[in-house]
Amino acid sequence: MGCPENDASLAAKVLLSADLRGVDSHGVARLTGYIRLWEAKRVNATPSIKIVHETPSTAVVDGDAGLGLVVAPFAMQVAIDKAKNVGTGWVSVRNSNHFGIAGYHAMMALPHDMIGIAMTNASALVAPTFSVERMLGTNPIAVAIPAGKEPSFVADFATTTASNGKLEILQRKNAMAPLGWVQDNAGNASTNANELKKGGSMLPLGSDREHGSHKGYALGGIVDIFSAVLSGASYGPWAPPFPAYVPMPENMPGQGLGHFFGAMRIDAFRTADEFKQHMDNWITRFRNAKPAGADRVLIPGDPEREMEKERMGSGIPVVDSVVEELRGAGEKFDITL
Amino acid sequence: MGCPENDASLAAKVLLSADLRGVDSHGVARLTGYIRLWEAKRVNATPSIKIVHETPSTAVVDGDAGLGLVVAPFAMQVAIDKAKNVGTGWVSVRNSNHFGIAGYHAMMALPHDMIGIAMTNASALVAPTFSVERMLGTNPIAVAIPAGKEPSFVADFATTTASNGKLEILQRKNAMAPLGWVQDNAGNASTNANELKKGGSMLPLGSDREHGSHKGYALGGIVDIFSAVLSGASYGPWAPPFPAYVPMPENMPGQGLGHFFGAMRIDAFRTADEFKQHMDNWITRFRNAKPAGADRVLIPGDPEREMEKERMGSGIPVVDSVVEELRGAGEKFDITL
Repeated sequence: MGCPENDASLAAKVLLSADLRGVDSHGVARLTGYIRLWEAKRVNATPSIKIVHETPSTAVVDGDAGLGLVVAPFAMQVAIDKAKNVGTGWVSVRNSNHFGIAGYHAMMALPHDMIGIAMTNASALVAPTFSVERMLGTNPIAVAIPAGKEPSFVADFATTTASNGKLEILQRKNAMAPLGWVQDNAGNASTNANELKKGGSMLPLGSDREHGSHKGYALGGIVDIFSAVLSGASYGPWAPPFPAYVPMPENMPGQGLGHFFGAMRIDAFRTADEFKQHMDNWITRFRNAKPAGADRVLIPGDPEREMEKERMGSGIPVVDSVVEELRGAGEKFDITL
Repeated sequence: MGCPENDASLAAKVLLSADLRGVDSHGVARLTGYIRLWEAKRVNATPSIKIVHETPSTAVVDGDAGLGLVVAPFAMQVAIDKAKNVGTGWVSVRNSNHFGIAGYHAMMALPHDMIGIAMTNASALVAPTFSVERMLGTNPIAVAIPAGKEPSFVADFATTTASNGKLEILQRKNAMAPLGWVQDNAGNASTNANELKKGGSMLPLGSDREHGSHKGYALGGIVDIFSAVLSGASYGPWAPPFPAYVPMPENMPGQGLGHFFGAMRIDAFRTADEFKQHMDNWITRFRNAKPAGADRVLIPGDPEREMEKERMGSGIPVVDSVVEELRGAGEKFDITL
């Protein structure tokens, strides 16, 4: 595509981190989608990523329509540098594209003894409470918190009941979705995993009003506002769609997708050693809580870490259709797989 | 109790804001609970609230066991002052008590054209996904975001499926709880609104694993860590219980309850005018989304604002049992109601 070599390696690293962590929907399976966005001139392979406004603890970054996989690590590094200087750093990003897994960017803070936060808006697939229309993306939040002897606490989740990746798995299997994941195009509860293809919507975390969907809607809204209204990206139902064949929304109120990153230096609050000892205590106590319905209580990040360990040994299984797509992309660019 | 007059008025103002906004469980109904904590020597009526550590964008505040209703506004003001200087301010608080509604503190940022964030840990009533034990409080998060002509976006929610206040209403009515709100003491789904009295637990937002309870658990964990592990308060199952008759947990790893506050100056990202115009556009578009199951789609903060308008006119209804308790408290302190 013409990406500088450093950018290409970084983008590959971010995608691979998703596959290693078991988030197959955000790994190499997305590569051809990025290529199609580049072909549609929506991704700029040689962006000039810039800070356009800043204070000691904040910045707005313009991604110049680059791959989010490259724009996001740039912006997260700005947050980390600001945290080194004044304790915390907060960066809102406009004019970007899909940034892969949020967890990768949040985890960049960990080696610096910082807490990392990453979020992004995304194309509208989710209906707020009492809405028939899709107004928000799956708008994920990732928070990475360092520990001492224990592995870090890494939460990385869509602000919906289930991620779009999980719906896609059901679609491939022709299986039904649990009630509470999607609604049909009239706002009725549905178990059809293909409901989105008929104008239906995904549901905010909480599923319905009685089970707190207004909280998931509020969370998705906060992610949208921090990522896009603060930065000048396009927000809500105007967020640019990921599939290149979907026309861009009319009257977009900003540029591209938006992200939001935060870094907080632990020793801006208490010594890193003390904090990590208490995190070890927190993690150990929660892991040893009396379990029900499973062998043990998990710490956020446990399943992904176990998957990474397994796949570092045995490799990453890739489904045939993705292999075919990657071969096709290789031929297009004269690269043999 | 011996509170300085300014502290007493501030505490009353915070409690009244809850009653006005319809969050009756966090208003004057709590007053006698605070008095009992003071009688048990767990609340210090004349605290010396102090910053014990700081950087340009962060601080740790020690509440000296004061009423959270007084400690929290102090700490939020520190966050606002830091945001004035370096763009954002982030304050973690230890050695505090119950702080009333989170929304009050977050909304302190609004007149300064800042986004306000407030969260707190609380006594353990909530079982993480796959846990039988109660490990977390209802750990609320509030985020207040200024708009222009439209009213502000104010989200204020417990990170559980339903708040404890809603459970208490069902208990008073002898009504059943919807499935997904609580589990029994063996970790089974239950509709008994009194389950907590028999060793059962509240459930994280999402209700069960299939509907994303691991996300609500992660959110509750993040609130606990930001509020208490960062500051040196007591966390997880060791958070001090609100009822004064419940013994304090053994081996507490920190001091009192913890809170976390944030303030972000809008113009640390883009001009406040531009931001507010886009917030108005965001709010108007969401409010006009095609509705189902209700007359219209709500913006976070709408129900509380409507309730406040109503109660400013017609007064605040207070249930008889609370009136009796308040009369009793008045007699104790020689105050006639």
